[in-house]
Amino acid sequence: MKQKLAIVKIGGNVIENKTELSKFLALFSKIEGPKILVHGGGKLATNFAKKLGIESKLVGGRRITDAESLEIITMTYAGLVNKNIVAQLQANSCNAIGLSGADGNAIKAHKRPIKEVDFGFVGDVDKVNVATISSLVAAALIPVFCALTHDGNGQLLNTNADTIASEIAIGMSADYDTTLYYCFEKKGVLMDIADEDSVVKHINLTSYQKLLSDKIIADGMLPKLENCFHALKANVNKVCIGDTSMLHPSSTLFTTITL
Amino acid sequence: MKQKLAIVKIGGNVIENKTELSKFLALFSKIEGPKILVHGGGKLATNFAKKLGIESKLVGGRRITDAESLEIITMTYAGLVNKNIVAQLQANSCNAIGLSGADGNAIKAHKRPIKEVDFGFVGDVDKVNVATISSLVAAALIPVFCALTHDGNGQLLNTNADTIASEIAIGMSADYDTTLYYCFEKKGVLMDIADEDSVVKHINLTSYQKLLSDKIIADGMLPKLENCFHALKANVNKVCIGDTSMLHPSSTLFTTITL
Repeated sequence: MKQKLAIVKIGGNVIENKTELSKFLALFSKIEGPKILVHGGGKLATNFAKKLGIESKLVGGRRITDAESLEIITMTYAGLVNKNIVAQLQANSCNAIGLSGADGNAIKAHKRPIKEVDFGFVGDVDKVNVATISSLVAAALIPVFCALTHDGNGQLLNTNADTIASEIAIGMSADYDTTLYYCFEKKGVLMDIADEDSVVKHINLTSYQKLLSDKIIADGMLPKLENCFHALKANVNKVCIGDTSMLHPSSTLFTTITL
Repeated sequence: MKQKLAIVKIGGNVIENKTELSKFLALFSKIEGPKILVHGGGKLATNFAKKLGIESKLVGGRRITDAESLEIITMTYAGLVNKNIVAQLQANSCNAIGLSGADGNAIKAHKRPIKEVDFGFVGDVDKVNVATISSLVAAALIPVFCALTHDGNGQLLNTNADTIASEIAIGMSADYDTTLYYCFEKKGVLMDIADEDSVVKHINLTSYQKLLSDKIIADGMLPKLENCFHALKANVNKVCIGDTSMLHPSSTLFTTITL
């Protein structure tokens, strides 16, 4: 039987709030066995850019990562956020090691090709280096990934943190029994968007089709769920969606997704 | 016989100049066998602080690291500089992994006690985690350390890069035959400060005493040399001082220091 491995992704709502972050890191530290954390930088990068007088570039409502933005992202994600998370995990007796996709050649990507929009220094993942990540995990280190990859030619690339989390989970599924936890601001997939506690506790491929046809899952949840099923079809054992309290061993109010 | 390990420290003059940095990284990549790189952030942190309207605080001519400065230092050293160095080393087929002292609990320090001056978030090194660094080196990874440590209670600390390099070299000397390379703007210790090529090729404890009494070594070189002999007395095999060209296998114009 394969050993269990938890891959946890946290969003901006946790990173931007010091109290929430420190509560989350205490919870994360208590997850038994090997684990991996993935984070973005939330609004911190945008706030720093503003302070420096650098404006966010949007094309058709989508953010563009130009050279200046990539510098700010590298500073905030890989520097400020990553190292403070690592230092706090160490204080929780969790032997964290902070990584970008360039470190140990952990995640290789390519710059997104220019079609209608040139997204700039944005990377689409090509390959997760399972051997390197496994060797760190085997050394009882807890990898903490920020949302940066590299192209192997010296270029760092801004990469979606949800995708990084699912690609790591997929890669590591060769060696481990993986569970992917997506923490966000809701308690899970809701039956009624107006009722925070109307959590759908379990979704599989069959019930997913019904939720889609009943229009329960729409808008922002749709790509999230598609991403979950993509991971499950690629051998990730289980995906859980909810707020950070789902990491509490006694928690039951979150959504579990299986095939 | 112990395996050789090179510990190379680079200064601001290399980090601040993209051409010099990329030339250096190509040279560093070609060093045979296991190696470790240590860097600070040079003037990049000061420049960013200025752009953000944060003034450098000096007390009695010495820089103070307040909370704001520590944020900037964490962003530039551990983020911008470290990750760009790692990505470029990867492009040179050198499997680098960027670290602060918090990562893998690699370097523990304590906040410098307040005496005449409160230096703020400045750390004095307590312990290098030889086991963790050795396990990375054994996995054929090339650690790249920025000048940050942690106190084990969640606090990052700004720490002198020369000290980090010598403390790592000292720690690793238990397992390896270590050579410590200090790269700076001169070709080595100079007999005549006005003649860039008047390099003292070899210094040992005896000749060091003579150089001191002849006042050849003074000012800025004095603490540097003291640091070198401290490392040598703590089992570092050899210390080399010079500009980055000393890493070229055919180079002879640099200062080698032994006991």
